[in-house]
Amino acid sequence: MSLEYLSNRMLPAIESELKRIVARLDTPRTRPFAEMLTYHMGWSGEGSGTEATGKRIRPLLVLLTCAASYRFSQKTEVEAETWKRALPAAACIELIHNFSLVHDDIQDGSDLRRGHLTVWKKWGMPQAVNLGDALFILAHMALLETQDTFPLEKVLQAGSIINEACLALSSGQFMDISYEKRTDLVAEDYWPMISGKTAALLSACTQVGAFLGDSDEQTLASYRCFGHYLGLAFQVQDDYLGIWGDSALTGKSSESDLVAGKKSLPVLYGLAKNETFAKRWAQGPIHSDEVGQLSEQLAIEGAKLYTQEAADQMTDLALQSLRAAEPQGEAGEALFELARMLVSRKA
Amino acid sequence: MSLEYLSNRMLPAIESELKRIVARLDTPRTRPFAEMLTYHMGWSGEGSGTEATGKRIRPLLVLLTCAASYRFSQKTEVEAETWKRALPAAACIELIHNFSLVHDDIQDGSDLRRGHLTVWKKWGMPQAVNLGDALFILAHMALLETQDTFPLEKVLQAGSIINEACLALSSGQFMDISYEKRTDLVAEDYWPMISGKTAALLSACTQVGAFLGDSDEQTLASYRCFGHYLGLAFQVQDDYLGIWGDSALTGKSSESDLVAGKKSLPVLYGLAKNETFAKRWAQGPIHSDEVGQLSEQLAIEGAKLYTQEAADQMTDLALQSLRAAEPQGEAGEALFELARMLVSRKA
Repeated sequence: MSLEYLSNRMLPAIESELKRIVARLDTPRTRPFAEMLTYHMGWSGEGSGTEATGKRIRPLLVLLTCAASYRFSQKTEVEAETWKRALPAAACIELIHNFSLVHDDIQDGSDLRRGHLTVWKKWGMPQAVNLGDALFILAHMALLETQDTFPLEKVLQAGSIINEACLALSSGQFMDISYEKRTDLVAEDYWPMISGKTAALLSACTQVGAFLGDSDEQTLASYRCFGHYLGLAFQVQDDYLGIWGDSALTGKSSESDLVAGKKSLPVLYGLAKNETFAKRWAQGPIHSDEVGQLSEQLAIEGAKLYTQEAADQMTDLALQSLRAAEPQGEAGEALFELARMLVSRKA
Repeated sequence: MSLEYLSNRMLPAIESELKRIVARLDTPRTRPFAEMLTYHMGWSGEGSGTEATGKRIRPLLVLLTCAASYRFSQKTEVEAETWKRALPAAACIELIHNFSLVHDDIQDGSDLRRGHLTVWKKWGMPQAVNLGDALFILAHMALLETQDTFPLEKVLQAGSIINEACLALSSGQFMDISYEKRTDLVAEDYWPMISGKTAALLSACTQVGAFLGDSDEQTLASYRCFGHYLGLAFQVQDDYLGIWGDSALTGKSSESDLVAGKKSLPVLYGLAKNETFAKRWAQGPIHSDEVGQLSEQLAIEGAKLYTQEAADQMTDLALQSLRAAEPQGEAGEALFELARMLVSRKA
């Protein structure tokens, strides 16, 4: 209820803010470049619309955390709207997320993203590398705009949190790419990789939100942990669904992480077991028609239970951290709802 | 003389600063990633050394401009060393330059950079895209470190100058890539492209240096123009050498821009003429053994003189702007030397 109420107010504001920032590229000589950007953001071209924009989870998390950090945010309308001041920071993180998606799609050779062709597939790799770079540059421009509504030391501190998260993101990406060729991986190698690739940016969302919302040190630390564990829970759940989710098992079995050869948590668990699943994996790429049988085999070897337990454990840690942060008012309730929604999703 | 004296003091300081910043990536799990970075920067691996590091023109320009901005910089040793405070900003711009080189090599499919294999050629495209991203992230981390030695509003203003330059760089890169397929280009399309691709970052160097050196508004504007025209002069000279330079004409004629099919200023001039050169160009890729004859033809049609005059004109504008900035002391003399060296080079 709270999430729905606040989302309905925050999401349009996020979209406007993103559009305002991206419009900086819209000059006569760079119009086609700006059009690539609006296509990627889901605003123009074939397939544009809600599915193509993505869920804007990250900026929503920034704004909700910011709003929930004000101890008396419900008291007056002025204070209740304080999250609006954090819009450029929220847009900054969403642009960073999108920069990483554009480059990720190139690195993975993915043809589709949010139901439509990826940028590199549509305009070629060179333009897509450059488009990702532009998104990252625009993100930094957005960040500097927070100086209109926050003290300068806050802007720089938020920048520092975001830079650290980006370096972790890039380090996680390095691990992910290098894991593809490695055959000696164990489940312990998984956590540092997803800590960087998924959790770092979500943790930056809650940190920046709480920091701009004037949280004290201890509350800030709790929000940081909340974002971190939420990111881990989200990724483990993603890995679970990638093998035992509906679309991975039925109909579109080509979407199974097994076919993609992704070294997700259940796969690493299965490889460490070194039983039937690991022996099949070692023989080369897995075909769509083997997916049903192999995901079953992986479950028999204990990977399904292990992954579900890992997801549950990370979810518990996330919710514990959120409770410790004592989020206030409707935004606080919305954060609990958002967390539960993210980690209990079925697709 | 002044340039040599100051370079000998500044260049080692720049190198130390860069190494300090890049060391952030050197953790047990990301050591191979850090090694890719030190390889690209010219510090490790085969071919490491002075040639592989590049000339560090950009950070030198930041420091010299900063030092030359202090009206009384020669008076005391303390004031003469003020450029040291600008080291993180100088390193920031060099890291941005290197980020753009790593991505540029991927986009152009270049095998060699500064005499050794490019990052993508050595570790593959996905890792190279990510390495470029990491360089950009480290650049932003370096920028934030200027808050140790400058007021916060200066840090944010420098960040704003740098972000604008990066967006221009990315816009110029968009134009460059899209020009490859266009057949309707004229010489006028050349300037906005190189204004972004080459001049924007050089202009950011002189702006940031002058700004951190406490220049007044008018002096800052002169330094900005100096960097801008220096960048244009540098690029036009590069285009000239790419066709009529020693290495393009003799021995390594495969290095000619004509073979690479690069739409440089002399080529655009020749295409607009629509005479013998343009007709041959339209027929497809140019081979090494045609280079001598075609570069001669292009000269006959007037492109050589036109390009030389354009380079001279931009050089004049750069030197005029520099004089207007009234650069002080040895650093001021060094700036004139550096400018003359860059635009009169023969290779």
